[in-house]
Amino acid sequence: MATEKPYFYEIEIKVRDYECDAQGIVNNANYQHYFEHARHEFLEHAGCSFGKMREKGIEPVVARIEINYKNSLRGGELFVCKLYMQREGIRFVFYQDIFRVSDGALCAEAKVTTVCTKDGKIDKGDDFATLLEEFISK
Amino acid sequence: MATEKPYFYEIEIKVRDYECDAQGIVNNANYQHYFEHARHEFLEHAGCSFGKMREKGIEPVVARIEINYKNSLRGGELFVCKLYMQREGIRFVFYQDIFRVSDGALCAEAKVTTVCTKDGKIDKGDDFATLLEEFISK
Amino acid sequence: MATEKPYFYEIEIKVRDYECDAQGIVNNANYQHYFEHARHEFLEHAGCSFGKMREKGIEPVVARIEINYKNSLRGGELFVCKLYMQREGIRFVFYQDIFRVSDGALCAEAKVTTVCTKDGKIDKGDDFATLLEEFISK
Amino acid sequence: MATEKPYFYEIEIKVRDYECDAQGIVNNANYQHYFEHARHEFLEHAGCSFGKMREKGIEPVVARIEINYKNSLRGGELFVCKLYMQREGIRFVFYQDIFRVSDGALCAEAKVTTVCTKDGKIDKGDDFATLLEEFISK
Repeated sequence: MATEKPYFYEIEIKVRDYECDAQGIVNNANYQHYFEHARHEFLEHAGCSFGKMREKGIEPVVARIEINYKNSLRGGELFVCKLYMQREGIRFVFYQDIFRVSDGALCAEAKVTTVCTKDGKIDKGDDFATLLEEFISK
Repeated sequence: MATEKPYFYEIEIKVRDYECDAQGIVNNANYQHYFEHARHEFLEHAGCSFGKMREKGIEPVVARIEINYKNSLRGGELFVCKLYMQREGIRFVFYQDIFRVSDGALCAEAKVTTVCTKDGKIDKGDDFATLLEEFISK
Repeated sequence: MATEKPYFYEIEIKVRDYECDAQGIVNNANYQHYFEHARHEFLEHAGCSFGKMREKGIEPVVARIEINYKNSLRGGELFVCKLYMQREGIRFVFYQDIFRVSDGALCAEAKVTTVCTKDGKIDKGDDFATLLEEFISK
Repeated sequence: MATEKPYFYEIEIKVRDYECDAQGIVNNANYQHYFEHARHEFLEHAGCSFGKMREKGIEPVVARIEINYKNSLRGGELFVCKLYMQREGIRFVFYQDIFRVSDGALCAEAKVTTVCTKDGKIDKGDDFATLLEEFISK
């Protein structure tokens, strides 16, 4: 069951009306914005903001994204985006799910595969892994 | 001085990284999104959400927007959007200012002129004025 | 090889500067906008615009999206988005790839799984298949 | 009459469905995106792309924007954005209007006031004026 996943971070967000399209629901691409924002907030929370990583020459980049769309969000609705992450070789994989607050419905689930670059080249990611040690699920 | 304006509503928002452009600052058009979101949140707070107004056939539409850009916001920065409104004939004018939280700097100030439509036609706005009576500055 | 896929539609698009983020490259979510726009343009080209389908009560909805990010696009760059589609049971799967015009580099490849709804319920999709008969790869 | 203005550049753009909001019309903020895109395309056309100016340390920044909203655009509609510009002291003012192609209706008109910064400071703009000499209306 989705709710049994080992989430260790969550953020509550409210849908803004301009994020909806003519069908009155959040446009599909905007979920990707939500997922990105939640990852960046998590990284900041974990003490390695995007800004700081960039200073060190570390930059996680998204190599692949998979999103399953389950239920649509509408303007003004509250949702929570929960996440956990795993290291798989040189990949850092974020599992992120969006649940509507009013009824707990799973709206979208994402698997976001990132790799680390250091000074512009793909890197084994050991520095990134050290920074996030306590958060990476075994 | 900007801070002496008769604001009666404010909302704190955090810049999302994807709202910045290649210059590393919030893209100009996104301030308009922030202003719109703040107005819609105010209207919901005031008990007349966009959804409810639409049910009654009332729809405020933006006729004119003026924005002065003063200081740039960057990814992750917190800001507060403050607003007040005045009725000027058939127009409802929202005065909205964005201040950076860290230093109180005025980042952008907007004057947003709306008119009410009812069942698709421009309306004198009396229904809208009644709904917002306690908020409209004299 | 990517270029040997049975594409039957393509559209050229130029990156707009506001679609780039602070890293100076197109923000990941905007590729999803490009893919959506290309699908809608294809559907219009194929004689079944989103508007017309909605009138008939048919609505294709995205159930799943997978995107591999290969090379980054920058402000002002031209790219071409090529696509083909297959019917897989009740699913209509769009394969869409984005190539940079200047050097032909593959920038992003997507697999977009849609299902048809008719009057709000998931449908076998026979009406949609008939409309697109000549385009669906066997 | 709007069409008698001394426009010297125009670009045709098609509304993308994701640019529309729940009211089925282009969201107000997206017009600002259109205006920005048209200015950048004009500057590239005039031989001074944003990228090149940045290399020289010149950067035009938007100080003020005024938009009058006249008629709404809908998904898939074609429009043309026409512009001309004037120098007013240290300000470079772009006048930009958006017309729907199908019926010529004026949809939005903008006055965008920019100032030039050079190496981060506001500048008299003489370098920018020289680059655009042939285009600046007297």
